[in-house]
Amino acid sequence: MRVAEIDTPALVVDLERMERNIATMARFFADKPAKLRPHWKTPKCAEVARRQLAAGAIGITCAKLGEAEALAAAGVRASVLVANQIIGAAKLTRLVELARVLPELIVAVDSGEQVDALDAVLRRAPAARLGALIEVDTGMHRCGTSAPDETVALARRLAASRVAYRGVMGYEGHAVLVPDAAKRKDLAESAAQALAAHAEALRAAGLAPEIVSSGGTGTYDLTGTVPGVTEIQAGSYVFMDGRYRDVRGDFEPALTLHTTVIHRRGRLLITDAGVKSLSSDFGLPVAFDVGARVVGLSEEHGHVLCDEGVELAPGERLRILPSHGDTTINLHERFYAARGDSVEEVWAIVGRGRFV
Amino acid sequence: MRVAEIDTPALVVDLERMERNIATMARFFADKPAKLRPHWKTPKCAEVARRQLAAGAIGITCAKLGEAEALAAAGVRASVLVANQIIGAAKLTRLVELARVLPELIVAVDSGEQVDALDAVLRRAPAARLGALIEVDTGMHRCGTSAPDETVALARRLAASRVAYRGVMGYEGHAVLVPDAAKRKDLAESAAQALAAHAEALRAAGLAPEIVSSGGTGTYDLTGTVPGVTEIQAGSYVFMDGRYRDVRGDFEPALTLHTTVIHRRGRLLITDAGVKSLSSDFGLPVAFDVGARVVGLSEEHGHVLCDEGVELAPGERLRILPSHGDTTINLHERFYAARGDSVEEVWAIVGRGRFV
Repeated sequence: MRVAEIDTPALVVDLERMERNIATMARFFADKPAKLRPHWKTPKCAEVARRQLAAGAIGITCAKLGEAEALAAAGVRASVLVANQIIGAAKLTRLVELARVLPELIVAVDSGEQVDALDAVLRRAPAARLGALIEVDTGMHRCGTSAPDETVALARRLAASRVAYRGVMGYEGHAVLVPDAAKRKDLAESAAQALAAHAEALRAAGLAPEIVSSGGTGTYDLTGTVPGVTEIQAGSYVFMDGRYRDVRGDFEPALTLHTTVIHRRGRLLITDAGVKSLSSDFGLPVAFDVGARVVGLSEEHGHVLCDEGVELAPGERLRILPSHGDTTINLHERFYAARGDSVEEVWAIVGRGRFV
Repeated sequence: MRVAEIDTPALVVDLERMERNIATMARFFADKPAKLRPHWKTPKCAEVARRQLAAGAIGITCAKLGEAEALAAAGVRASVLVANQIIGAAKLTRLVELARVLPELIVAVDSGEQVDALDAVLRRAPAARLGALIEVDTGMHRCGTSAPDETVALARRLAASRVAYRGVMGYEGHAVLVPDAAKRKDLAESAAQALAAHAEALRAAGLAPEIVSSGGTGTYDLTGTVPGVTEIQAGSYVFMDGRYRDVRGDFEPALTLHTTVIHRRGRLLITDAGVKSLSSDFGLPVAFDVGARVVGLSEEHGHVLCDEGVELAPGERLRILPSHGDTTINLHERFYAARGDSVEEVWAIVGRGRFV
């Protein structure tokens, strides 16, 4: 199939760009003590994970249990970190089922109650093995422990449980998207220092962390070179998006939404991709390679204002760079993976919404 | 299953409220010349469509071809209006396939090129029957014809084609969500007058429209009582949402997202539902029946600030009223349909994303 034959709206991966992004990130980590465990919340696609693992990634990071289940269901067998708290009886049952399938499964914890709940479910499933990282709040103020003492107490509780204590994680989500490089560096270094203080307290207590996980696409080279950090969770680098393109230039936009013009009135184009195809949580997306800008999104219509002289007519197509790849991908069933004008493969996007 | 046993995040339909909403709308149209063709872009669920049809709806409105295909694939056989332009060879082929399955299929057109393209595809598929409404721009300035002359010329072109000319539609999307009732009425009446002017020009040309379609949940009682309007496209009334609750009080919120608290720090709760479960295109959603407010959404986390004295702890649940039901539903795979505390049925949400 040719790219021009794909029915729209559709997400199209530029394979050459994606491969260069994967290679660039792999090269960075090749000679570093820290390694890459790419975040799968961005692509939600087994074929992407396989390419990242083949390029040297030590495993995969997932944002939720449903993603890890979808990754396993798609046949990927890798060490998986679910970088989130798993709460509630139904999810704990699913978690131990999944632990039987994957070679390694690690979750985040930030309370004693969670350790006890994991311990209890492992008591009833003695064949399942499960590791845990203690999530530390390194400045984002979402989940995570605050004081090193709290982290040490949790590590002791883990060490006394059926859950394997593996280390700590801290995601500097408040830093990764800061466009000002100096400010981003400051925030990332403060976060890394906070994480290091927790790791040091653990070492002092005889509970040295084997894994210290941190970092995103905006900070992989900052926190990824901090002594003691062992792995980085960057995900967006594989495709990049409009928001991250404003933050750093070492990766290429590799994913665009192809949309068809369905109506034109003067310089205003109406297209077939609205907010049900293109997320707006990071603001409006941008036209990719044409003199035009997206000025609004209805549910199923895009409103695009052309520059003077742009001749796009109904039936013609334009490409849109999502402002936020992760949430746009979450709206689609598949990627069209293209090399130049040729669609090489169609890849399923899985683990969207609630996955049982 | 009890509601408290549903794994979260999950969309839960309050069946009693939904049934009352369907009955209230059916009662309104029972003695009116105009009839209801509810918009399916809101529920995307065959079970909801069946209940609306059983209550007297004359058919279903869809926003795109993929929705109409999903509705048909789920076994619903009704007159379907796809209230949108169908552009491109791939979609036209799908359209005539669908026309063979449904008892009636009507699409919107707003250009001669579209009429010609529909005519050409029907020439190659003589068994397929397809109707068309001319979309009129009644003030929203998205798609649609502008001048009555343009509408008459299109009707002539339709009448000379293999496509059955059926009438006109004009959706006053710029009016439906205006909270000020007087202003909403003004905008709806202006839109209805614009549509009436086009209909009158068609009558004068001997092309009297059989169907004049208009209206949404915010304006069903305004445009739905304008002489000459034959059907109304309201969809959101079935569940309502946070945005529409501020517009009108004649329907009840019947859909909430159930989410689990996974972390608490003082009055700040972190929950398991972020922007991948709850849309934010109409602003942040609101806590439904507890003293708390949503202050932020990460991808998979909600940030909720409790009032003093609210004792929600990790593992406990709260209910969130989506700000925009349509785009929130588009993120989920299923509804849990509950009566009181008991889940009666689980309904698939279909036609999400690109549906082939």
